[in-house]
Amino acid sequence: MNNDTDRDNASIVAAVSAGDIRAGARLITRIERGDESIAPLLKALFRLGGKAQIVGVTGPPGAGKSTLISRLVAHWRGLGLRVAVLAIDPSSPFTGGAVLGDRLRMGDHSGDGGVFIRSMASRGQLGGLAKAAGDAITVLDAMPWDVILVETVGVGQNETEIMRHASVVVLLQTPMGGDDIQAAKAGITEIGDIFVVNKGDHPEADRTVRFLQDMISLSHRLHAEKPWHPPVVKTRALNGDGIAELAQQIDRCFAALAANPGFARSRETERIKHRVTELLRHQLDQRLRANGSPWLDACVDPVIARETDPYALADELFQRMAG
Amino acid sequence: MNNDTDRDNASIVAAVSAGDIRAGARLITRIERGDESIAPLLKALFRLGGKAQIVGVTGPPGAGKSTLISRLVAHWRGLGLRVAVLAIDPSSPFTGGAVLGDRLRMGDHSGDGGVFIRSMASRGQLGGLAKAAGDAITVLDAMPWDVILVETVGVGQNETEIMRHASVVVLLQTPMGGDDIQAAKAGITEIGDIFVVNKGDHPEADRTVRFLQDMISLSHRLHAEKPWHPPVVKTRALNGDGIAELAQQIDRCFAALAANPGFARSRETERIKHRVTELLRHQLDQRLRANGSPWLDACVDPVIARETDPYALADELFQRMAG
Repeated sequence: MNNDTDRDNASIVAAVSAGDIRAGARLITRIERGDESIAPLLKALFRLGGKAQIVGVTGPPGAGKSTLISRLVAHWRGLGLRVAVLAIDPSSPFTGGAVLGDRLRMGDHSGDGGVFIRSMASRGQLGGLAKAAGDAITVLDAMPWDVILVETVGVGQNETEIMRHASVVVLLQTPMGGDDIQAAKAGITEIGDIFVVNKGDHPEADRTVRFLQDMISLSHRLHAEKPWHPPVVKTRALNGDGIAELAQQIDRCFAALAANPGFARSRETERIKHRVTELLRHQLDQRLRANGSPWLDACVDPVIARETDPYALADELFQRMAG
Repeated sequence: MNNDTDRDNASIVAAVSAGDIRAGARLITRIERGDESIAPLLKALFRLGGKAQIVGVTGPPGAGKSTLISRLVAHWRGLGLRVAVLAIDPSSPFTGGAVLGDRLRMGDHSGDGGVFIRSMASRGQLGGLAKAAGDAITVLDAMPWDVILVETVGVGQNETEIMRHASVVVLLQTPMGGDDIQAAKAGITEIGDIFVVNKGDHPEADRTVRFLQDMISLSHRLHAEKPWHPPVVKTRALNGDGIAELAQQIDRCFAALAANPGFARSRETERIKHRVTELLRHQLDQRLRANGSPWLDACVDPVIARETDPYALADELFQRMAG
């Protein structure tokens, strides 16, 4: 029985790593369903990955992310690159009803075996979505894609968590009026490597570009050791203006990472630390939900008796883990 | 230096456990600020607690929670009970501007040393609020209150997490029309021990009571081992109708817990397991944010080299903790 499972798993890993799109899609569906039995597959697939460029794209609803991404994909396809798009967008009609949405999005790319577009639904579980996105990226990263584009809407906590899986993050903004600029939070430039002002023909577009440049310069002075100064690109995704420049800036950012191994390494360390923490958190939640976590049950008795306390117990468990 | 801190801490613990309201309020402010140096205080205070009845009250905005709670407090004060109210309500004007809000809420109770009302603001950190609420309850539970009433708005994930700190949970509903009843989720009765339909003079009130009773009976059949069948109480907090009955049902629920030590114990075990997990999750987040978690940094290198993977590393760390 176990041997059969092992053999099945080995053939799935072989299919996915050879680029079998159906095999990859089926795994992502199992991830969406919360199927924990794929853990050995994810372990094996992770070790085969690390070659694709993982680009995150995020921004508020209505900023034109889908159009921009479709243009970027066309640009990369024109260069012969193989591109996977993972869209995680609970507020968009493209997710949830993934099949229809993905067909719509495929648009020009349908029938092109060098493109894979896949939506992931949220299933209502907040933190869980970021973990599931990381699992799906692990699958895609084991396949022979040159670029994996991860899209998510908004700039909330959940989106930030999802963007942590990307190596380079593109933050999309719409042109902002004076009031929007006044109201913009100081942290607006915190999570981007490249900023895009889409709808670049809008009268406020140039002002928004300058505002973002100022905000970036400000935060850059605070973190002067960074070898990458985020550029602001003006695009008009609707007719393709600025897409080539955006693609070039993405290339430049990956080149900057490659040229600064120390910087790239510290980023990857942060990314993996975050991922391990996310998985640990998931483990904790799973074990709690599962009936019976005997080791924890046993720990709890002295707390009930108030001989010890939850703080001391959490400390002790943490020390054991870290020791 | 450390001796001074120890002495200071000992005198704070002594003051709080003797019922010094100012000392308790100051600690809650430190919790709100995320002051990690109070950990030893919380440990000591937890061991002094466990005597108060912790009642959670939650429900959608506009259901009349504040009025109901004010009535309940008046009822308990009439019986000579000492009552603390902890309001965690990010969407209400009572929180954030805690001082003014709390004064307004004190209303009839101002100048009554047997009542303490305190709001806690969210500070924008989702999961963190539930952890902070647990810390504040730890402080209040070490003080000589008979009842600690924890109030929060809504029935989202964050609110559910906060309600896990309570021994008995009261879920407030407004009367629902036919459409609302159609739309009501199956899980609507998942987190309450006592259900309240407030605004009981509303034409839809009786129908809503029957609907909730049906939903409870349904879920009760699924969990037949439970020794407590949640009642539905109709109230009209505005004029006090039904408040005495609600208070009586809360008493009955605590009596049922006391009469079924096995049930009470399994609930407390679940509560403490959840609390420890929450604290562990907090530890993980803190250590990651702190510059340098050398133990985790050291683990990450083989993952970067793809000799191992984040899943295996998370498993290993978890095993160490559980082993």
